[in-house]
Amino acid sequence: MTNCLIATTPEPPYYAVIFSSLLSDQDMAAYQDMASFMLDLATEQDGFLGVEHAREKLGITVSYWETEDAILQWKKNVEHQTAQKLGRDVWYTQYCIRIAKVEREYGMG
Amino acid sequence: MTNCLIATTPEPPYYAVIFSSLLSDQDMAAYQDMASFMLDLATEQDGFLGVEHAREKLGITVSYWETEDAILQWKKNVEHQTAQKLGRDVWYTQYCIRIAKVEREYGMG
Repeated sequence: MTNCLIATTPEPPYYAVIFSSLLSDQDMAAYQDMASFMLDLATEQDGFLGVEHAREKLGITVSYWETEDAILQWKKNVEHQTAQKLGRDVWYTQYCIRIAKVEREYGMG
Repeated sequence: MTNCLIATTPEPPYYAVIFSSLLSDQDMAAYQDMASFMLDLATEQDGFLGVEHAREKLGITVSYWETEDAILQWKKNVEHQTAQKLGRDVWYTQYCIRIAKVEREYGMG
């Protein structure tokens, strides 16, 4: 199971979306449901490669994608757009989304 | 203070190092001390822009850098090399390091 936490990604290049956020603590039950739904939905998208997540006060979600176009298509997904609007209006007090091209990777284990 | 958790970074392009890790749970007091020391030391390096961190079971640390060369210099730092070796030998069971060029960013708050 531990292998599931660190995403298994192909040889670079590929893309990463680094999503850093702070929660408002409003309506967190609905947030958890939506976060779980969005995770499942992202997994089904063309070009999705994997995702990693951790939260203390700051939350960091890094999703990995084959191409920039796959990221744009996911951003435009209708159900995802609903989640984005609720995120802006209710769940997040602050967030930053960075789109980055992974050029190399290495690791252990 | 909340503004301190999400790194304030300049206009892209710049670089991100996405460090995803699982801990062995061995010698965690020393790990915490070293992690704190490395954070302070990284902040002093040329080209360092900021860092974000969260851990549940999976830990994600994203550090931001002006150039790839700044990342390479930090990797070669002698005290950081000692920390890297202890990380491989004692503290981590698995990790992945991805070097990525941030091409665009947007956010709220």
